[in-house]
Amino acid sequence: MKICVLPGDGIGPEIMAEAVRVLKALDLKLEMEEALLGGCAVDATGTPYPEATQKLAREADAVLLGAVGGPKWDALPRDQRPERGLLGIRKDLGLFANLRPAILYPELANASSLKPEIVAGLDILIVRELTGDIYFGQPRGIETREVNGTQQRVGWNTMIYAEYEIRRILKVAFEAAQKRGKKLCSVDKMNVLECTQLWRDIAEEVAKDYPDVELTHMLVDNAAMQLVRAPKQFDVMVTGNMFGDILSDEASMLTGSIGMLPSASLDANNKGLYEPSHGSAPDIAGKGVANPLATILSAAMMLRYTFNQEAAAQRIENAVKKVLAQGYRTGDIFEPGTKRVGTREMGDAVLAAL
Amino acid sequence: MKICVLPGDGIGPEIMAEAVRVLKALDLKLEMEEALLGGCAVDATGTPYPEATQKLAREADAVLLGAVGGPKWDALPRDQRPERGLLGIRKDLGLFANLRPAILYPELANASSLKPEIVAGLDILIVRELTGDIYFGQPRGIETREVNGTQQRVGWNTMIYAEYEIRRILKVAFEAAQKRGKKLCSVDKMNVLECTQLWRDIAEEVAKDYPDVELTHMLVDNAAMQLVRAPKQFDVMVTGNMFGDILSDEASMLTGSIGMLPSASLDANNKGLYEPSHGSAPDIAGKGVANPLATILSAAMMLRYTFNQEAAAQRIENAVKKVLAQGYRTGDIFEPGTKRVGTREMGDAVLAAL
Ligand SMILES: CC(C)[C@H](C(=O)O)[C@@H](O)C(=O)O
Ligand SMILES: CC(C)[C@H](C(=O)O)[C@@H](O)C(=O)O
Repeated sequence: MKICVLPGDGIGPEIMAEAVRVLKALDLKLEMEEALLGGCAVDATGTPYPEATQKLAREADAVLLGAVGGPKWDALPRDQRPERGLLGIRKDLGLFANLRPAILYPELANASSLKPEIVAGLDILIVRELTGDIYFGQPRGIETREVNGTQQRVGWNTMIYAEYEIRRILKVAFEAAQKRGKKLCSVDKMNVLECTQLWRDIAEEVAKDYPDVELTHMLVDNAAMQLVRAPKQFDVMVTGNMFGDILSDEASMLTGSIGMLPSASLDANNKGLYEPSHGSAPDIAGKGVANPLATILSAAMMLRYTFNQEAAAQRIENAVKKVLAQGYRTGDIFEPGTKRVGTREMGDAVLAAL
Repeated sequence: MKICVLPGDGIGPEIMAEAVRVLKALDLKLEMEEALLGGCAVDATGTPYPEATQKLAREADAVLLGAVGGPKWDALPRDQRPERGLLGIRKDLGLFANLRPAILYPELANASSLKPEIVAGLDILIVRELTGDIYFGQPRGIETREVNGTQQRVGWNTMIYAEYEIRRILKVAFEAAQKRGKKLCSVDKMNVLECTQLWRDIAEEVAKDYPDVELTHMLVDNAAMQLVRAPKQFDVMVTGNMFGDILSDEASMLTGSIGMLPSASLDANNKGLYEPSHGSAPDIAGKGVANPLATILSAAMMLRYTFNQEAAAQRIENAVKKVLAQGYRTGDIFEPGTKRVGTREMGDAVLAAL
């Protein structure tokens, strides 16, 4: 069980340290090796996804990632920005299936900006396609050409999906729905975009293989509204890379505690990259106050999906529930009457609860 | 002052009848003529934006629209669907600037799914580009071709913006911000999409002409989160057609009372199409229970933007505020302790309050 550990930028190294401690405390034969991704990799090697990292990531069974990016690297040319590293590793490893749970822990119900009755018990899984769509579509670029008789800059990108790409992500989503509430909502914009008309057609075809799952379709603008109005109507949602980027972030924010949410990005053989849903939070980096729980829960997802260690995954998840019940809170989820702790103390608490 | 009135489908005719009554009650020389758009036009003529409607819409100074669409027409070929009529008239009349206010009326604060302290006093204006982007970009389509050695269907669309399109919508947004809180947030996905990198570059350039407005940039995924987390941080938001479709619907749903929200779509000379932000609600069509206030408020926007009749616009808006204060509510915004009324009675109440 070989794990490539990529702490990344900002709070990445701090939260990763706690996840690694938790993994080491389990009685599993895990081999972990660190490498650079993102801004730290740009600083050290000039490129956000260096060859050494590529080699390690390809050889490993799973990748555990902290977070990448920060204002420090925002002014760099496109191909040197930290997020290129993230897009690069996703594409390189063929991680087409991004699973993002949006779960509201009962102890953290107050953290949500929504009314308790709207979000209490929220448990949605968003399945986002991650290696296709307008993220990678060609042609793309910015150029100066003649428009209406004058020379103007024009910028363009291509939203594109082939049948096999849509089919495989829908299979992942249907199978996830089978293991949960058996309801799948596929999100598209078929009334405007041909690309997503194909998506809807193929969703209908794949549905025939999953008669036990109820498939519905929703337009992306309506989905963005329904997530605000009545998010508990959803069980599993599936959509393309671009819409998934927007809707999965919206859905995680419904919980008000994005510092708690892990994510998994899988290939066809359950090799995966696991990372928290939140970003690198450069404003609090190095202060020892970041919430390590999303990274720790990402490690649990890794044990479940890639290593088939369901018991160990649940051990971590139960430990996290226990520390919440015990009242431990990092700053992002703190409220009066609970115990405010730092990154390291939160890690200690999880270790004690294991 | 020539107005082309398009009642449309579903609840369209009912809510439009009330808006027309309100307009007639004002002492203005308005000429109104009706035509068909959407499903009703398909039924009558086989096409959603028939020539007679095109002629009337082009000749008029403003268009007042109810709503279009419904399940009845969902199975039709693409070019006959009601929404083609909507996209067609937008493009035909060059209505590139879509203004969508998201305002929470104090009397309706309970209707929101968000906590009162998060949304009380909410007043955002979303400026959405409406005639470009992936909505109209070429090439687009679905075809069967060889992919990875097999014949597969592939679907694609093109996200594209030319400099002049970005520049003119940003001007509209900056000018709107100047008349409001002087804060403009431009939304893009520059870390992935070249098309929106150009958007950001041009936003920076246009900003030089508006030193009194504070311009910020936000990535679309973050914007979808921030609207849920702390919507009152925004004054005016500006973005492209696709992101604007999603974010403006999300923002209107924050109020919980989308039946109250008007919208304007303007060309370069303030000719405009005005319509409620909600849809055609086929489930309640013909029952006389739909909320006509968004359409009535759209008529007020028309008087303000196209006809420069600020006083008349405010007269309508104040009448709407008054009926809310008096406790009149249609079903969508009803709560115990208020007076439940139908579409017609709500129109009566506004007329009485004028
Ligand atoms: C950093 C960025 C390229 C990335 C994306 O858009 O996919 C991020 O927003 C995410 O969702 O993981
Ligand atoms: C009906 C549809 C084509 C339209 C759009 O996507 O623009 C609608 O959602 C809107 O926002 O007015």
